[in-house]
This record gives sequence, C-alpha cells and structure tokens, in this order.
Amino acid sequence: MPDDTRIEELTVEECWTLLGTVRLGRLAVNADDGVDIFPVDFLVRERTILFSSAPGTKLVDITRHPRVAFEADGIHDYRRWSVVVRGDARRLAFDEEIESSGIRGLRTLIPSEKWNYVRIDPAVVTGRRFVSARRRR
Amino acid sequence: MPDDTRIEELTVEECWTLLGTVRLGRLAVNADDGVDIFPVDFLVRERTILFSSAPGTKLVDITRHPRVAFEADGIHDYRRWSVVVRGDARRLAFDEEIESSGIRGLRTLIPSEKWNYVRIDPAVVTGRRFVSARRRR
Repeated sequence: MPDDTRIEELTVEECWTLLGTVRLGRLAVNADDGVDIFPVDFLVRERTILFSSAPGTKLVDITRHPRVAFEADGIHDYRRWSVVVRGDARRLAFDEEIESSGIRGLRTLIPSEKWNYVRIDPAVVTGRRFVSARRRR
Repeated sequence: MPDDTRIEELTVEECWTLLGTVRLGRLAVNADDGVDIFPVDFLVRERTILFSSAPGTKLVDITRHPRVAFEADGIHDYRRWSVVVRGDARRLAFDEEIESSGIRGLRTLIPSEKWNYVRIDPAVVTGRRFVSARRRR
C-alpha cells in the first residue's frame, strides 16, 4: 500500500483539546455475550468523559463491566485525528453530582429517553494524528 | 432533555447500503487487559467487513478473542445513522483469499505498515437512524 503518510502520537494535552471539538464518540463495553459498541454523545469536563445513557443494556454492561474504551475522531487542520480513552465508567448517582458535572448542558445528537448519566474516569489516554503529504478528504 | 427526534431501526439491507458509503469505522475488541477500540479503514464485500491491520496488539487480540464489534456512522439525507456489526474476525490467510476479497482496493485513510488483512463475518447487524423534526448538524 503506498504510504506517504506518517502517524504522530498526540500529547495528552492535545488529546483533551481535540476531544473537546467533537460531540459524537463511540463506547466499547464488555457485554455478557462479548464486546459491544455504541455511539454516544459526550462532553468533556475536567478531563473526564460524560455521557447520558438510555435505560437498557449499555448501562447494565457498564455496571457489571466498568472497564470501557471510548473513541472519538475528527479532522483538524486538514489532518485526521483519533483519541482513545480507556478507563472505568461509573453512573453518576446523586442529583448534586449530576448538576455539578455540567452534563445537563449536553444537547444530544442521538436522543432517546436518557436519564442515566455516566462518567468515564480515564486510566489511559492516547491519540494519533495522521499526517499526509497530500491532503486527503 | 427536549426530544423532537425519533429513532428508527434500519433494515439489514439499509445497514449494508449505508456501510458502503463511508470508509472509517471503529473496531472494538477484547484485549487481555479489557476492552479496547481502534479506528479502522474498511471495505464492504459481500456483506462482510474487510480491513487491514498493522502488526501489533490489534491482530493479536483478534486471534485470541475473535468476537468483535464494529461500528460506523454517518449522515445520509440530513439524518444521522449508525450501524453496528457484531461477529467473528478472522485473518485472511492465503494470498488467493486476499486477492479475491478485493481488499487491496482499499485506499487507506489511516495508513501504516499494514500487511494483515482481516474479515469480520457478521453474526448480528443492527442500525439506527435519528430523525429530527428540525434539521441538526
């Protein structure tokens, strides 16, 4: 495969900055019948990932298997980037915690009846930028 | 959360059609230290997902834990969609199999030294479309 492109590792600082520029990410969880993946609208607050979750399998899986992986990507300055956050997901349990998290400011792109609020506390944050000699779409 | 949007389930036919319109997806795998997620360039061929994988952890995890979940999303006709394919990932082992798969036609957006070719044989394909009364970005 021709390759005039190189991959650059992002700093953790860059990862969080770029995560703040998009709204849609994907959450990978361990379900009882194997790994599963969901698109989620999210917010960044104080270097955690916040999202809301409809009642159902996604939250159940988080409760039983809190270790999750989250990915978001986008294009910045003509270069594609991707950031992965691995950590433990935890349901925000108290009204006060939910209010102070700022998650109620999330205008969802993937709406449904969402009354569970979840935070991922990051253990590992990694990101890459794909730098092409030619611009690609 | 205000909700003037409804979620429609996609038919399997629609799922495959929409998957064919994008190039970037995300692969969720079970790693030994928990679930992980990777962006992948992919192709659809005969209702399988094909992608190439750089040597390293991703393919090792697939070999040890073949059950994966794959997600791609996009916007079609002003409506966001998301499709999830769950199934078993398998490395294409023989040159003939690789050539006939058509995967060499994949122009990668996320290049690196990619000499492993992987196919996901789908077990379950699900998709949703998010239909808003107002158009959203």
